[in-house]
Amino acid sequence: MRLYADRTPEEMRASPRLANTAGHWPNTRSRERELGIAHWDDAIRPIRELNVTVTGDLSARFTAPLELGPMAVDYRITMPRILEDFIERGGDVAYGTITAEQLEELSERHDLVVVSSGRGTMTELFPKIEERSPYQRPQRVLQVSVVDGVVGNAEALNYELVPGVGEVVLFPFHAADGENHTTLYMSAVADGPLPALLNADVAGSDGREALDRVFRTIVQEHFPASSALFDWDAFATVGPEYDIAGALTPTVRRPYAQLGNGRWVLALGDVHTVCDPLLGQGANSASASAFIVGDAVVEDHLAFDELWCRRVADRMWQRSGAAVVFTNELLRVPPAPAVVTLLAAGSVSQDVADYVASFFDVPNTAWNALASPERAEAAVQEVGGEQVLQGVRQALAGMAAA
Amino acid sequence: MRLYADRTPEEMRASPRLANTAGHWPNTRSRERELGIAHWDDAIRPIRELNVTVTGDLSARFTAPLELGPMAVDYRITMPRILEDFIERGGDVAYGTITAEQLEELSERHDLVVVSSGRGTMTELFPKIEERSPYQRPQRVLQVSVVDGVVGNAEALNYELVPGVGEVVLFPFHAADGENHTTLYMSAVADGPLPALLNADVAGSDGREALDRVFRTIVQEHFPASSALFDWDAFATVGPEYDIAGALTPTVRRPYAQLGNGRWVLALGDVHTVCDPLLGQGANSASASAFIVGDAVVEDHLAFDELWCRRVADRMWQRSGAAVVFTNELLRVPPAPAVVTLLAAGSVSQDVADYVASFFDVPNTAWNALASPERAEAAVQEVGGEQVLQGVRQALAGMAAA
Repeated sequence: MRLYADRTPEEMRASPRLANTAGHWPNTRSRERELGIAHWDDAIRPIRELNVTVTGDLSARFTAPLELGPMAVDYRITMPRILEDFIERGGDVAYGTITAEQLEELSERHDLVVVSSGRGTMTELFPKIEERSPYQRPQRVLQVSVVDGVVGNAEALNYELVPGVGEVVLFPFHAADGENHTTLYMSAVADGPLPALLNADVAGSDGREALDRVFRTIVQEHFPASSALFDWDAFATVGPEYDIAGALTPTVRRPYAQLGNGRWVLALGDVHTVCDPLLGQGANSASASAFIVGDAVVEDHLAFDELWCRRVADRMWQRSGAAVVFTNELLRVPPAPAVVTLLAAGSVSQDVADYVASFFDVPNTAWNALASPERAEAAVQEVGGEQVLQGVRQALAGMAAA
Repeated sequence: MRLYADRTPEEMRASPRLANTAGHWPNTRSRERELGIAHWDDAIRPIRELNVTVTGDLSARFTAPLELGPMAVDYRITMPRILEDFIERGGDVAYGTITAEQLEELSERHDLVVVSSGRGTMTELFPKIEERSPYQRPQRVLQVSVVDGVVGNAEALNYELVPGVGEVVLFPFHAADGENHTTLYMSAVADGPLPALLNADVAGSDGREALDRVFRTIVQEHFPASSALFDWDAFATVGPEYDIAGALTPTVRRPYAQLGNGRWVLALGDVHTVCDPLLGQGANSASASAFIVGDAVVEDHLAFDELWCRRVADRMWQRSGAAVVFTNELLRVPPAPAVVTLLAAGSVSQDVADYVASFFDVPNTAWNALASPERAEAAVQEVGGEQVLQGVRQALAGMAAA
């Protein structure tokens, strides 16, 4: 097995760019333990609960304990180490950028080529699936930085949702400097009031004041529950190497393609599905998909042909589709009725709150519950009971009438 | 749970019609043990090996021991008993014929309606999937009877294939009379020489001589390996209640449909996929599919909507598609190159013979190996080794040149 990597471990460590602040949820962490690459379980501050607050007309708030929470460690720590693990165990690595043009040559050198780099020229090889890609442009504009000064709920994953405005997410992050900080994840509804206040230009720049002011102003103005978790006197972004700004269009592609030489290549991860990072589903989905691909290779390696690719694609979609639907439903403005029902029910039923918290690690549960308003109501009824469902119905009917 | 059955257990027992002679393979038998309905394990004569003979230009012959073979018991014994098991355990049964018109009413009375009756007016509800249905008419004409007089390989499943002519299959059958007989399964290539010699009219009739003569003439004339297993002086068909004649068009349907009232119904078994019975895949595929449906209900019962049906359909196809492809490839005239390769290799490699024998119980292995000539060669190479593959290639090239 040969890994084609665009950077060496040392180059990864030296990167001035924060790749993401993805949390790896327990099922992903379990896969990492299985692979013997879970090196950071003791280094990180555990995330012990999920807090969800909905601010605005629909006011909802709940807390769900997490048995084993997600773990967010700077990829400049994890990725080079995992690459070194691979090499130590006899894995072969070729460094350098691979372009779509080189794929034919690679496909003739190897039995199977899996494209798992979401950036670059290779994405276009895989056709977009329109019916699984409901959005034609980004739904959120992101301004994300690693910060200090969050003192409340410091061992929690804190979501604040303000319908029509955006989301702020605060959670522990183990950064490349070796310290435990907090991710301040600001997610602005693309058509809402916030994008005009964000400033992608100051992300990664040395002058920190402008960026700090953006966060301070918006959080204090629009996200009261989040604002209450800060000691604003102690608030500061960590530095220019800990900023992200940007926006993604959620996209699902067919994860296989035929090359000019007739051979087939498989796509994995972001090349297959681009999820808005709001719910941190992308990395977990890619990890699960990688295991699906591995299992498929073990099960059938007679030929890596269209049949094989299509079968793997179907199986990957069963998992990655859940991440896509979960995320896309949460992006909807105004909020999807199924989302409203479940958040409202979570506020009055701890069982429903726990159920919603389970979505992150097992997004198939979210897919089941969010696929229609009827399903969301059935979920509330099953998990919370008839009384909770009736209460939520009445409350929402009252809101609609008001 | 309510079962809508067209006949009572007593009516089933009294049926003058042989339903089929399906063998239940170990995975099906294991499901039956799990359900506590495996009542016949001790009554039957075990099937200890698979014998395959190809007669004609491509001459091939191999024997593979079967650890636990298939079990073929008259459905007039098994089905009424299983229905009684269901009732004893508290299952509710409504007797009578159900038509497509009644489905709407049933769909409103129940959370989920599963249509598992392949006959009648309901099949048309489920649209045929053309790309999975390569044949527009029957590929084989069948004349099948329960017989006595087979003395060779009596504890084996004996296949004789004569390319362009048809197949004869002989295997132990535990019949409604409580005795162990043999199934004489005669399968005539629809465009070959045999259909003109068959006689559907005499199946089920009291005059047995004409039918006995059909079998005797055709087996002795066209199927020498099978003929050698008979004591022709002792040969006789068991009686008019043990005959089948007919022909099926292999068809795959989308196993779900929306009713006029907006609700969805699921199809299972023959309504979903009609397999030619040549390889005995239909009953095993239906059993596996029933478990897939059961698992899907446990996993997600928030709504039995299009999403649910589509997901179940995808999963059922992963199993039933294997039965379909396995069977359809074996029906091809002239034989599919992948089939030729594997049968030829089975003749020279016991490992390949065992591998081919495994197809019956795990048809996904067959799907993998038969999906293309390249896959069949890769399978021979992996299972039998490079030398076997080269030998087979040379032998087949020699045949092609001759």
